[in-house]
Amino acid sequence: MIRVGVVGYGTIGKRVANAITKQPDMVLVGVVKRSPDYSAKIGISRGIRFFIPHEELVDAWNRAGARYYGTLDDLLQECDVIVDATPKGIGMKNRVIYESKGIKAIFQGGEHPNVGEVSFVAQVNYESALGKQFLRVVSCNTTGLARVLHAINQQYPIEKAIVFLVRRAIDPNQDTNGIIDCVAPSFGVSHHAEDLKTVLKDINIVTFAVRIPVTHFHVHMISIKLKETVDRREIIDLLEESRRIVVLSSRDGLGSTAKLLDLSRELGRPRFDIYENLVWLDSIYAEGKWLHLMQAIHQEAIVIPENIDAIRAVSGFTDALTSMNLTDSSLSIVSTRFY
Amino acid sequence: MIRVGVVGYGTIGKRVANAITKQPDMVLVGVVKRSPDYSAKIGISRGIRFFIPHEELVDAWNRAGARYYGTLDDLLQECDVIVDATPKGIGMKNRVIYESKGIKAIFQGGEHPNVGEVSFVAQVNYESALGKQFLRVVSCNTTGLARVLHAINQQYPIEKAIVFLVRRAIDPNQDTNGIIDCVAPSFGVSHHAEDLKTVLKDINIVTFAVRIPVTHFHVHMISIKLKETVDRREIIDLLEESRRIVVLSSRDGLGSTAKLLDLSRELGRPRFDIYENLVWLDSIYAEGKWLHLMQAIHQEAIVIPENIDAIRAVSGFTDALTSMNLTDSSLSIVSTRFY
Amino acid sequence: MIRVGVVGYGTIGKRVANAITKQPDMVLVGVVKRSPDYSAKIGISRGIRFFIPHEELVDAWNRAGARYYGTLDDLLQECDVIVDATPKGIGMKNRVIYESKGIKAIFQGGEHPNVGEVSFVAQVNYESALGKQFLRVVSCNTTGLARVLHAINQQYPIEKAIVFLVRRAIDPNQDTNGIIDCVAPSFGVSHHAEDLKTVLKDINIVTFAVRIPVTHFHVHMISIKLKETVDRREIIDLLEESRRIVVLSSRDGLGSTAKLLDLSRELGRPRFDIYENLVWLDSIYAEGKWLHLMQAIHQEAIVIPENIDAIRAVSGFTDALTSMNLTDSSLSIVSTRFY
Amino acid sequence: MIRVGVVGYGTIGKRVANAITKQPDMVLVGVVKRSPDYSAKIGISRGIRFFIPHEELVDAWNRAGARYYGTLDDLLQECDVIVDATPKGIGMKNRVIYESKGIKAIFQGGEHPNVGEVSFVAQVNYESALGKQFLRVVSCNTTGLARVLHAINQQYPIEKAIVFLVRRAIDPNQDTNGIIDCVAPSFGVSHHAEDLKTVLKDINIVTFAVRIPVTHFHVHMISIKLKETVDRREIIDLLEESRRIVVLSSRDGLGSTAKLLDLSRELGRPRFDIYENLVWLDSIYAEGKWLHLMQAIHQEAIVIPENIDAIRAVSGFTDALTSMNLTDSSLSIVSTRFY
Repeated sequence: MIRVGVVGYGTIGKRVANAITKQPDMVLVGVVKRSPDYSAKIGISRGIRFFIPHEELVDAWNRAGARYYGTLDDLLQECDVIVDATPKGIGMKNRVIYESKGIKAIFQGGEHPNVGEVSFVAQVNYESALGKQFLRVVSCNTTGLARVLHAINQQYPIEKAIVFLVRRAIDPNQDTNGIIDCVAPSFGVSHHAEDLKTVLKDINIVTFAVRIPVTHFHVHMISIKLKETVDRREIIDLLEESRRIVVLSSRDGLGSTAKLLDLSRELGRPRFDIYENLVWLDSIYAEGKWLHLMQAIHQEAIVIPENIDAIRAVSGFTDALTSMNLTDSSLSIVSTRFY
Repeated sequence: MIRVGVVGYGTIGKRVANAITKQPDMVLVGVVKRSPDYSAKIGISRGIRFFIPHEELVDAWNRAGARYYGTLDDLLQECDVIVDATPKGIGMKNRVIYESKGIKAIFQGGEHPNVGEVSFVAQVNYESALGKQFLRVVSCNTTGLARVLHAINQQYPIEKAIVFLVRRAIDPNQDTNGIIDCVAPSFGVSHHAEDLKTVLKDINIVTFAVRIPVTHFHVHMISIKLKETVDRREIIDLLEESRRIVVLSSRDGLGSTAKLLDLSRELGRPRFDIYENLVWLDSIYAEGKWLHLMQAIHQEAIVIPENIDAIRAVSGFTDALTSMNLTDSSLSIVSTRFY
Repeated sequence: MIRVGVVGYGTIGKRVANAITKQPDMVLVGVVKRSPDYSAKIGISRGIRFFIPHEELVDAWNRAGARYYGTLDDLLQECDVIVDATPKGIGMKNRVIYESKGIKAIFQGGEHPNVGEVSFVAQVNYESALGKQFLRVVSCNTTGLARVLHAINQQYPIEKAIVFLVRRAIDPNQDTNGIIDCVAPSFGVSHHAEDLKTVLKDINIVTFAVRIPVTHFHVHMISIKLKETVDRREIIDLLEESRRIVVLSSRDGLGSTAKLLDLSRELGRPRFDIYENLVWLDSIYAEGKWLHLMQAIHQEAIVIPENIDAIRAVSGFTDALTSMNLTDSSLSIVSTRFY
Repeated sequence: MIRVGVVGYGTIGKRVANAITKQPDMVLVGVVKRSPDYSAKIGISRGIRFFIPHEELVDAWNRAGARYYGTLDDLLQECDVIVDATPKGIGMKNRVIYESKGIKAIFQGGEHPNVGEVSFVAQVNYESALGKQFLRVVSCNTTGLARVLHAINQQYPIEKAIVFLVRRAIDPNQDTNGIIDCVAPSFGVSHHAEDLKTVLKDINIVTFAVRIPVTHFHVHMISIKLKETVDRREIIDLLEESRRIVVLSSRDGLGSTAKLLDLSRELGRPRFDIYENLVWLDSIYAEGKWLHLMQAIHQEAIVIPENIDAIRAVSGFTDALTSMNLTDSSLSIVSTRFY
């Protein structure tokens, strides 16, 4: 059993923690959280062991009547691997601690690529991550792009990809930092292209992005010039067969992200998460060597399976396919269709 | 076992259907749905028996490859009670059918009060609904107000209540009929006061309402003149003890409806539903005979327990307390605290 | 003097009517409006002559105490040219009336292209519209694309254009039909490409679109493959010199559409309109033969100058350049910079 | 002529500056602004003299090619009165400077009440502000409440007022700090009641507030217990006669704030401002001694006339009525109807 600790119990951390508890080969030792809020209290009531970052927070947790088991240092003593899901920039600082203790760690996409020896997307480069001490699971947008572009590129080599990202401005649990009645571009080429190249080294891609006032899903408009003429039906078949990608149709009533949100509630997964890329069948359009499609990315959930596979990779579990199968079956992830 | 059918598989219907499957004394015979969309297909894959409203829809369901078991008429033959959760106005038409077949039926709050012999909120008037043929479960806003005002009125008689409702404009699964960057008042006294009086006959209440561009939760600002001076602490105690009402604190990080949505996801209930009134502790303010408070109402979920109790009431199950206890335990409804 | 009537006094009609009053060679005979609402009453107080579509509306206008001068038929008797700005589909019906009376008419982009002999964007095809009886001014999105693509194509021939449109869901004065917390794609290739080809016949373009919950501005992400390598600086110079296109910089604080809205208020134009394409300097990115840029389109205002030029074109005013200069100076339209 | 300087050229400052230029008895000496952005550049092009807060900003303004006339110190030398419209908290610091130079100053409602000798609403307490050195114009919400409650209280004494404020979360020119799909209550009694008592000393009022994801207008739901029974018609007459209050009807098509925004654009005032309280006729409801009504407050504009009157008051202009008449006619402010 791989003994795993999760540092940071926010959007990513809490999901990774729950996913770990569903793996046959892992045990969740505990999680580190700063604030003894409702999510801590519910976690405690579910049996999760909480640790605090440092001693100064003892009073706050005691006042809140929230049980904790020690500090980050205490947690580290019991773990083989840490998943660090702290806010941007903190991971790089924590890396020093993990390094000094010789603990392996998985970082998130908000951190600088240098935080890990490899930037990781399971179905792209699992093997290159084997046995490394530090990995970085790339961001939700990059993960979503890597999956679909890698799948296509392997069968239909890509000459150039142009991607326009329509990004949700804040997550549904945030009540600050939003925008209202406003489109806010990220000027210049968006950072997503560079980030993607940490995973798909040789891809010729340019990305642009805007933030919009929604809280659910990033939407990607992807235009790809292939080296050969492509047939729409072949692409549909390819995507339907690709891991962690689902093709959906507006004919089933799924013609907007409001409907995708409702789909997620019908599916009944924890926190109404969707781990798969959601490609709209209706959006797939081929013209000569050009291929166009739109996909929606559940920004809170999509990197969770990657984190689980990353834990196995750093632990020396050599069989990528078996790891991904374990992950997918434990989380009910599908690669063909939901229904 | 009470054999129940659900007519209409939208926001309310699908939730009632699932809740029925969790009752020890009920069986879900089937549901009637018009469109063979994603929610039908997921329902089918979960073993729900679907029926179509009439023969003309046979082709659409066959084309979609969605299995159905017959028409509304077929379903009615097998049922003791129907929960009619069709869009506003359809229920009144369906009533004629139910009447001709001698089947009991529960209607929703969108229908005219005359559709039922009693307008129903379980903890207010269960007894008066016993054995009736037709009940009407009142709307989400009315249910939420009835619970909290009834609880207070019984202990601290109310002289006058003034309620301002800040209503979500559309449900999260709707992608039409919304408003953007806009507040839309319902002019005149809102209908909620009159509707509430179908349940709490003698209450002196006036209500006003606006629609705002959000999809989650109605928020009620309630100001009550009591007949006697009241103590804030007593009201908190009362509400904490009242059924299907939970008092929450911003000290736990629950200071907005975005956080309440996140709470619902942490709780892990189906479709992240919250069946309870959510009263903000921080909003409870007493000054002399005046009491003020704010509550959030999960508009999709709050009437689900009432529908379940209504099924028992029309079926002649005489013990209101036992019915509510059965309902609450089957749906993990709490009346004190979530954590 | 060209005697002009405006049929329809909504978003477009009221703006065209005001613009006509500022032309040295036109007179606004009157406008046709259905409802005697606040905008009619303000228009009346400003001296605009209102006409009603037909006699049945006499009572409504009398009850509202709103003065009118007759019906559509009465207005037509006094006009040389009609600008028809009625809701989609009505224009095609009205065309029969205009035809029977031998009156020239300008229709809007919501109508089928067949409604006009030419689909019109002044700086692209003024000459081809000369003396025609019926023109169609294309939609806001198409007008915005035609201006910028035509300007580029003339200097730097375009091999292929890929455009992604992020569309405001409703106008700021609408309080229905919106979406909330939702992205709604227009599936398949969006109609904008086909519409653009009614103006720029030979352009190789594909367009895709989503609707988002904002009320101000469409945002266009444009990627263009040119026949030759291009230099960013040259494109900036070209766009800065092009008519009805303004290049803006986030360095001046204009980094989102919220800031563009504020800019429009600072400029002090009527109804805070912006008639120009707004291209973000920061978004202009050249790589080899590829050119990428983002522009914001004020969806209510951008077609107003085109309507004015269209009136002159059908009236036989042969000098396109003089017409556009007259239009631009009368409306304070700039082609270089606002400040 | 009163020589006035404006310190801070944001939402309030730029509006006050423009309003000053329209007064027959005032001259705008100049404005202080930190950033040489689009609004500065447009202001410069309109002939406004800009000053910078301190020498460190010289480079930024020079780089931007934006002309300035000196620093705050230079401006102060030329002024009799300063309107300080700096962000919350800065005004209190600037007060020391104004005091040392013996300059009179008007502060805004974001500052602590102590910043001024009097908290000011022109039609309530102009006289008490006469000749003072420091005034504080209260916030938009407080100004809007003071006007309407004072008008009512003078004719129909108020026993108790309960106000629920539905507040726009951010201004339309902000692209940060917003909320999305969220209602965020201000817990406890909102500060507006206390603030109102700095103007209407003896009023018995309690206020509650939520923030919602809109950018235009605060909406106030006001419930008032009067000492005597009141007649709805009398209240309508009273409000229609009251200064800076306009009664609007949904019968004219003004049934939401989206329509009020459109109204503001039709009116054609600078920056589509509305200086008047907008009371919905349809919302006025009287029952016995209780009176209920809803009003919309244009949060950016409503305090502008108060600032102008405040300038006269500190300058010793003794005739309140004449001051308000001057202000209103210069800004086209109406007290009866717009059309």
